Amino acid sequence: MSKPYVVGIDIGGTNTVFGIVDARGNVLASGSIKTQKYAAIGDYVNDLYNELTRLLEQENVADQIAGIGVGAPNANYFTGNIEAAANLPWKGVIPFAQMLRDKFGIPVSITNDANAAAIGEMTYGAARGIKDFIMITLGTGVGSGIVINGQLVYGHDGNAGELGHVIVRRNNGRLCGCGRTGCLEAYASATGVARTAREFLELRNDSSVLRQIPIQDITSKDVYDAATSGDKLAQEIFEYTGTILGETFADFVAFSSPKAIILFGGLSKSGELIMRPIREALEKNLLTIYKGKVQVLLSELKESDAAVLGASALGWEAK
Amino acid sequence: MSKPYVVGIDIGGTNTVFGIVDARGNVLASGSIKTQKYAAIGDYVNDLYNELTRLLEQENVADQIAGIGVGAPNANYFTGNIEAAANLPWKGVIPFAQMLRDKFGIPVSITNDANAAAIGEMTYGAARGIKDFIMITLGTGVGSGIVINGQLVYGHDGNAGELGHVIVRRNNGRLCGCGRTGCLEAYASATGVARTAREFLELRNDSSVLRQIPIQDITSKDVYDAATSGDKLAQEIFEYTGTILGETFADFVAFSSPKAIILFGGLSKSGELIMRPIREALEKNLLTIYKGKVQVLLSELKESDAAVLGASALGWEAK
Repeated sequence: MSKPYVVGIDIGGTNTVFGIVDARGNVLASGSIKTQKYAAIGDYVNDLYNELTRLLEQENVADQIAGIGVGAPNANYFTGNIEAAANLPWKGVIPFAQMLRDKFGIPVSITNDANAAAIGEMTYGAARGIKDFIMITLGTGVGSGIVINGQLVYGHDGNAGELGHVIVRRNNGRLCGCGRTGCLEAYASATGVARTAREFLELRNDSSVLRQIPIQDITSKDVYDAATSGDKLAQEIFEYTGTILGETFADFVAFSSPKAIILFGGLSKSGELIMRPIREALEKNLLTIYKGKVQVLLSELKESDAAVLGASALGWEAK
Repeated sequence: MSKPYVVGIDIGGTNTVFGIVDARGNVLASGSIKTQKYAAIGDYVNDLYNELTRLLEQENVADQIAGIGVGAPNANYFTGNIEAAANLPWKGVIPFAQMLRDKFGIPVSITNDANAAAIGEMTYGAARGIKDFIMITLGTGVGSGIVINGQLVYGHDGNAGELGHVIVRRNNGRLCGCGRTGCLEAYASATGVARTAREFLELRNDSSVLRQIPIQDITSKDVYDAATSGDKLAQEIFEYTGTILGETFADFVAFSSPKAIILFGGLSKSGELIMRPIREALEKNLLTIYKGKVQVLLSELKESDAAVLGASALGWEAK
């Protein structure tokens, strides 16, 4: 009989969270270690092994794990490597899947965090039963996972789905962390929203509660709070951000004609403040044959479990 | 034993070309009828049946056809319908695949012409052995067929791959035939090149042999002839067009990370005039992880056979 559980590991710049998950997406138990604490990848893998083994023994499922799925920045599904991830302490190319396989003796698959989120959504969340969708993660950056005909799109080299780096402003665009200018991520991430706030406050004269905050300290959370309290300028920042997202989504639709675009991550929790302008701009900019066909949905994965669930879903098919 | 031949039918606004094709892409025999002559779809199907049957009997292969593949504007792979094709004489929704199945008693698959070109390239042309590529057809319009992991991307409704209608100029873009503004097709099609010529000639004062032609009569062919004869302004038109294509391709790469982008159609025959600026703009605009990895190739299908070959390739899996 096939084994009834998988392990999901979500590696973030600050924390690594892991959990044991069953076929219905229930998290039996979870734990975490501090990613940042480990300058050497070997020490990190050792501690991860020890903590996870303790958890597996505690739950009495050590011999019932079908596979381990890992979501990590710059993780490549094909090579099993984590490559030059700016937010992780380990430089160069880390053969992470192989290191875990050697340690645990269990199949391991890894992919980047946005792809893991898409797989999680397809397996346990809003995309159940949807074969064509695009997952957009609106966090510190903008990530994406693309599913076509029920399969995640990896591309010829495992690097497909970098929709945060599609150019939305060809001329005089904002500098992006990737070194280019005008990327979606420079506008539609949490930091992008904060940059828009600074731009609006500098270029305009109308009053806003945001003017009470030192301009360099403004966060997307401040903008959200101001907008929900009725601040007009803050609301326009969401309008501006949502419009850019909707316009850009219309181009994504011309590529893969998805049934849904699913939003995940901090900014998506702004609810209708961001969803209304996204839906309006999307519908307005769609080619006629797509109009009225594409849903914009919010992730249905519980925030605290989502990263682990997404990674764990990869464990079912790990090799 | 499976049957050794397929039939390919390419339906264009003016002509319908059909041919009998073997597994290696050899066209045994071909014929054509005038699409425009038939106001009624029933008469068209009857004549197509008669002409094609004559050809099959002449080649003595009437009982050896595995399937019929059809490439046509606005043809939907999932429904088998041709839907509101502006360039064809028949209005509304035509259940074309079913009509052919009823008539021939052979499996039939249909798809749009750009998808057919992609399948043809994968089966017989430059994309043999490439599992991830994007086919771009640069003709009167700009079409596309996207192949991911060896499979054509149809999207949830069969309408994926309208990359000619991705927005390349968000503000003050040219009016496109689709009713929107700023689409790639309004710049990078044959008509787009002619429009660029008119713009350049009106906005600039430098001399050009193109000024000898009445401005409304200039075609992309005129621009090509002028450019190859050394005309600076004409060369800059190709530079401008190729740069827009290359910039836009860089965004396509962020979607599906293809190994190759393959060009087909009239404009692609301009050779290095268009290929050099495309390659330069693509490489310059790629996200770092993709740099140096994406080839821009020309179709290897013989122009006269390409449309029929592409359509025929669909016949092998027709149902």
